[in-house]
Amino acid sequence: MNSFRLTPLLRRQLIHNTTSYKTPARRLFHSTSPIMSEKLKPAARVSGRRQDVWSIINEAAAASPRQPIVNMGQGFFGYNPPDFILAAAKSALDRVECNQYSPTKGRPRLLKALADAYSPLWGRQLDPNSEITVTTGANEGMLSAFMAFIEPGDEVIVFEPFFDQYISNIEMPGGKIVYVPMHPPAEGAIKTLSAGEWSIDFDELARAVTPKTKMLVLNTPHNPVGKVFSRQELEKIAAICVKHQIIILSDEVYDRLFYTPFTRIATLRKEVERITLTVGSAGKNFYATGWRVGWLIGPPHLIQYVSAAHTRICYSSVSPLQEACAIAFEQASAHNFWQVCIHDMTQKMTRFNAIWDELGIPYSQPEGGYFVMANFHKVQLPQDYPFPPHVAERPRDFKLAWFLIQELGVAAIPPSEFYTDANAHIVEDYLRFAVCKPDEVLEDAKERLRGLKKYLKE
Amino acid sequence: MNSFRLTPLLRRQLIHNTTSYKTPARRLFHSTSPIMSEKLKPAARVSGRRQDVWSIINEAAAASPRQPIVNMGQGFFGYNPPDFILAAAKSALDRVECNQYSPTKGRPRLLKALADAYSPLWGRQLDPNSEITVTTGANEGMLSAFMAFIEPGDEVIVFEPFFDQYISNIEMPGGKIVYVPMHPPAEGAIKTLSAGEWSIDFDELARAVTPKTKMLVLNTPHNPVGKVFSRQELEKIAAICVKHQIIILSDEVYDRLFYTPFTRIATLRKEVERITLTVGSAGKNFYATGWRVGWLIGPPHLIQYVSAAHTRICYSSVSPLQEACAIAFEQASAHNFWQVCIHDMTQKMTRFNAIWDELGIPYSQPEGGYFVMANFHKVQLPQDYPFPPHVAERPRDFKLAWFLIQELGVAAIPPSEFYTDANAHIVEDYLRFAVCKPDEVLEDAKERLRGLKKYLKE
Ligand SMILES: Cc1ncc(COP(=O)(O)O)c(C=O)c1O
Ligand SMILES: Cc1ncc(COP(=O)(O)O)c(C=O)c1O
Repeated sequence: MNSFRLTPLLRRQLIHNTTSYKTPARRLFHSTSPIMSEKLKPAARVSGRRQDVWSIINEAAAASPRQPIVNMGQGFFGYNPPDFILAAAKSALDRVECNQYSPTKGRPRLLKALADAYSPLWGRQLDPNSEITVTTGANEGMLSAFMAFIEPGDEVIVFEPFFDQYISNIEMPGGKIVYVPMHPPAEGAIKTLSAGEWSIDFDELARAVTPKTKMLVLNTPHNPVGKVFSRQELEKIAAICVKHQIIILSDEVYDRLFYTPFTRIATLRKEVERITLTVGSAGKNFYATGWRVGWLIGPPHLIQYVSAAHTRICYSSVSPLQEACAIAFEQASAHNFWQVCIHDMTQKMTRFNAIWDELGIPYSQPEGGYFVMANFHKVQLPQDYPFPPHVAERPRDFKLAWFLIQELGVAAIPPSEFYTDANAHIVEDYLRFAVCKPDEVLEDAKERLRGLKKYLKE
Repeated sequence: MNSFRLTPLLRRQLIHNTTSYKTPARRLFHSTSPIMSEKLKPAARVSGRRQDVWSIINEAAAASPRQPIVNMGQGFFGYNPPDFILAAAKSALDRVECNQYSPTKGRPRLLKALADAYSPLWGRQLDPNSEITVTTGANEGMLSAFMAFIEPGDEVIVFEPFFDQYISNIEMPGGKIVYVPMHPPAEGAIKTLSAGEWSIDFDELARAVTPKTKMLVLNTPHNPVGKVFSRQELEKIAAICVKHQIIILSDEVYDRLFYTPFTRIATLRKEVERITLTVGSAGKNFYATGWRVGWLIGPPHLIQYVSAAHTRICYSSVSPLQEACAIAFEQASAHNFWQVCIHDMTQKMTRFNAIWDELGIPYSQPEGGYFVMANFHKVQLPQDYPFPPHVAERPRDFKLAWFLIQELGVAAIPPSEFYTDANAHIVEDYLRFAVCKPDEVLEDAKERLRGLKKYLKE
């Protein structure tokens, strides 16, 4: 059973990854640095030692005997944006002004296209000049929001599981994270239920608020859970935030992928809109995660500072692809693009999740986004399976992920990475699969996953 | 003579820009924010009130009666990258993997192309995997370097005039800036001399070092001065930095535009290379400032932390344009591109600077880059010229810039913005012109600048 190969990279990693799992902060490095002058040492914010999930999974995949691996780990698309969007990008490249610095707030055409696209959803006309700012992906957009509002010691409420970049982004300006876990449905290990069944304990949320609470991060549709927060849930969150004047950062990067009614928290009512920054991503909307175009929508008294922070971080964002995104928004309806997105992703979900039904493995039926969480409680890992130390010391989901890569050649993400240590046990039976892949890849993954049959306990 | 028109935007600005000029920190906002809840207030790092030079000049340009303005202010190109580079970008857009997330350190092909391009200049083989990291423009690359090494209270030495983004980028992680001014040649007001005559007082530099000095920022070829630091000067800077183990951040974004021998400080000797991070920019190299692709080259014990910071700031950089830059580097020699760059920019410099010779206005003859600093000591501004308050309160160069925009319709940048208040007087007679514009634009600017004749004192 000792079938995993050690590449030099992996060997180095196995040797160096024995530090224990102490803090919820994301850590990027293992101890490969040569001894060096004290004067040259890095800042604490980048000098942590724990290896992150992405490099563990990527290195495991590179070292697996089951090559090529079917990679359902990271959430990038296995196919291109549609031709009308690629054509827009190519035509932008021919225009001098589209190859030069954009205004720091974004190209006027993209700001207008965003205002036109989102005004109907907001139920009122958005002002492209004061209520929207373009960023370098949603990621740098969220960092800009934290940089704009967080002073050292300010608290930010984050739900677990979280998108891992939130953590370092909040810590960069000195923010303190207050975690509130989402709870999987009690019967999640035995029954397939809607991802909507993952729940927040609103008393727990209310208790997390202190006089120092400055922001709350919401993510809907949710990565990795696949939950779309109901209007009722959003009302409860909003009530707390309005009462305490907590800025809501609503990460809605999967806003065009919902399979149940989707409410944007900013649109609940005026008092909520006044405190809400909504985050979007062209990467997610247009199947082009590498384009690094994102935006925030919000009231001028918030947006202006996000924009100021963005200017100081990246100066401005990629010009020709901003223009392409503007054209993509302008032409999306004519191409029926938003409906096609939902239709295609629903088909992929149905196609892929059939394997869980076949195996009798329960999963959270996604209400939005492109991830599915399957519950591997029934999968029995062989006793004495040789997990490397940096995997052995992590929760069971890391072992499950390692095992799937080595034995079946399918890469998925262990979601305990997106919980604090204290709450990691909540998801230790789950794995996250990204289904934004071509159908052949999904079929290949399913065929490989049939290899799980012999490990299922009754 | 009261010929400037007030647009609503400008009027608002005139009313609100009366706060006085107190700190060297770059300030982005004037007081337009509505009254809002204390709880929603922005962090200090973005809440400053002084208006920056870019918006002053852009708003002045928009309000000028001399439309269209000839914009020689901001340093963006007035022409496109060559066709082989645009073709590379277009072909990258057709490839699925080029539209999705790149590795956080950069696309392997770009890392290899950079290693191949820079190894001959370094005199040894650079390792693409450990000695280079790709960033979202040079700008975010430098922020990543500061985030990687600066703890609150650490000091960073910056020469004046500085590229303005350095300041907010150093302040973001809590760094303290220690300024060392560059001095124009004593006869700069009466004679055209080489930009190389701008000098550093090395005793002043030595005195700026304290036990808290963590980094020093160097810029060569220099914006706005046009100076290329001589090997001798670099040796002196390097000696101080090696002695005190100060990390050198060498901003060499104009590294392909030099008209005198150019030395890269990292290549002086091993002890210097060990402490040096060299910054590059595809935007500057390939006439595409809007592409937002940059990189840092340095030893692994520094680069790994820059890369970690970059991952936390932007996650990864724009994929299809990284691929295009890889191809651009691979094919540059075959197209004789680097020679063409120097040839074309030299021609533009010669063409444009002829106007100063014609007018008898002295300038600093650039040794590199695409900016020229002209000395307007001889230009007499009309008494009682109606400068708006936010210009009237700034040094003479702001008044010169305002006057040129209003009376001649030529926009240039007042360089005192790039000095602290205490040293602003050093450049109050200078204006910076960007010559990276089509020849027709340069000719138009020259024709307009002939209008200065009547304001020249003998
Ligand atoms: C919840 C969530 N937010 C933000 C992002 C980042 O989006 P972008 O690629 O636009 O930076 C992701 C990407 O995986 C995500 O899952
Ligand atoms: C000296 C200097 N450094 C850095 C930059 C920023 O380069 P980039 O556009 O690659 O972020 C500029 C742009 O004007 C510059 O003049």
